Amino acid sequence: MLILVSNDDGVHSQGIRILADALRGMGDVYIIAPDRERSAASHALTLHKPLRLENYGGNIYSVNGTPTDCINLGVNGLLHRKPDLIVSGINRGGNLGDDVTYSGTVSAAFEGTLLGIPSFAISQVADDNYKFETAARFALQLALMIKEQSLPADVLLNVNVPNLDITGIKGIKITRQGKRIYDKNAIIEKVDPRGKKYYWIGGSRLSWEEMEDSDFAAIEQDMISITPLRLDLTEYNAIKSLRNWEATLDEKMKAKVMI
Amino acid sequence: MLILVSNDDGVHSQGIRILADALRGMGDVYIIAPDRERSAASHALTLHKPLRLENYGGNIYSVNGTPTDCINLGVNGLLHRKPDLIVSGINRGGNLGDDVTYSGTVSAAFEGTLLGIPSFAISQVADDNYKFETAARFALQLALMIKEQSLPADVLLNVNVPNLDITGIKGIKITRQGKRIYDKNAIIEKVDPRGKKYYWIGGSRLSWEEMEDSDFAAIEQDMISITPLRLDLTEYNAIKSLRNWEATLDEKMKAKVMI
Repeated sequence: MLILVSNDDGVHSQGIRILADALRGMGDVYIIAPDRERSAASHALTLHKPLRLENYGGNIYSVNGTPTDCINLGVNGLLHRKPDLIVSGINRGGNLGDDVTYSGTVSAAFEGTLLGIPSFAISQVADDNYKFETAARFALQLALMIKEQSLPADVLLNVNVPNLDITGIKGIKITRQGKRIYDKNAIIEKVDPRGKKYYWIGGSRLSWEEMEDSDFAAIEQDMISITPLRLDLTEYNAIKSLRNWEATLDEKMKAKVMI
Repeated sequence: MLILVSNDDGVHSQGIRILADALRGMGDVYIIAPDRERSAASHALTLHKPLRLENYGGNIYSVNGTPTDCINLGVNGLLHRKPDLIVSGINRGGNLGDDVTYSGTVSAAFEGTLLGIPSFAISQVADDNYKFETAARFALQLALMIKEQSLPADVLLNVNVPNLDITGIKGIKITRQGKRIYDKNAIIEKVDPRGKKYYWIGGSRLSWEEMEDSDFAAIEQDMISITPLRLDLTEYNAIKSLRNWEATLDEKMKAKVMI
């Protein structure tokens, strides 16, 4: 098996090395990751500057770009063939609820799925003292399961692991994406020594809507959360209700022309 | 009405000014946009450096960050209240199919919706000679429609406008997100004067899967495409099929501990 490992914490992060080590028994493992931390890079692509691949010995490479760049450059520029599996992580900190849309780690798995490669992202839910060994062992079990059973088409898995020793894990839960409560990105205003204002996007506190089967709820119950995510963002339920806008908007556009 | 306008082409782009002008009759319009082009920035947030707001006269501001930063800083740092509407665009070039997940313009509307504000993104499908007037006029009609009818909760609209005069527009179509054909991000390899390789993420050609009601199909028929998008990425169809993985994975984790 050919396995590509990436992340958004950067090629030198501890989590990616432990993850790669855990998967090595399954086949050839390549690490292709950003040359520095690119947290909250989301699904950004680098289109306006050239990218470089840097080798760090063996199958370890960095890219001066985003996690999504790494997947593209890894698959089409370095490996020249599709890996059998892409695993992104182990992320320092959870990727739960709406945060999946900001996450570079989840986006690397998203890009892998877009390219038709079975992919999952894995995150350790903690602020420090990361118990990466737990996530790494689970990543191996999940990778074996995917190899055996395969994933549904156009579906990636977003895995979050409580920061516990393996014996503390209460079980595995298939979940849905939770929802944070509003003020997560509150802005912090400061003044610099020259009297000019500047702003920080504030830290996110772990507060979320009560929702059965959410990723947040699983973590709170000391369970590993696996959320299947889709590539298609269409809200099909809204198509029907918006259908009657078509004629009205068309008339208004034409009326505007005639005035 | 308080209306916030943003984009990913930057505060100095022509499309954002024409859009703001078109909406001005509806209320107070603020432009808060990146200080330079941030195409393909996706839903990235700037967490590791401070952000600055720069005023360009009147209600026009730039931010040294991503479109998502602009929405956050605009709503929570500058306006200190929720706008009644967020409009992102007019983007230079379409945001169709999978490209919505890379788009900074769509992500600004996504962020607005996350913050509970009715939001849409609007893009002019062309490579040059942009007929922004057509998109601007439609943006006004759509904004009036949203004011009157409101949007379903947690739904944003992704609008793509063919590059035609208004009289050339064949109609309005509620669509679903199309799907590009694989090799869109092919990698272009080059060698620098010092013999070292570098790479470009290649241009995307307009090739897509045949699919009824897709955004691509509407544009091909000279129709304005409106795709309702969702915030929740959960693939609910996969939850059931993956449910039987829970026990198996749990056993494997435990077995691993006992060995």
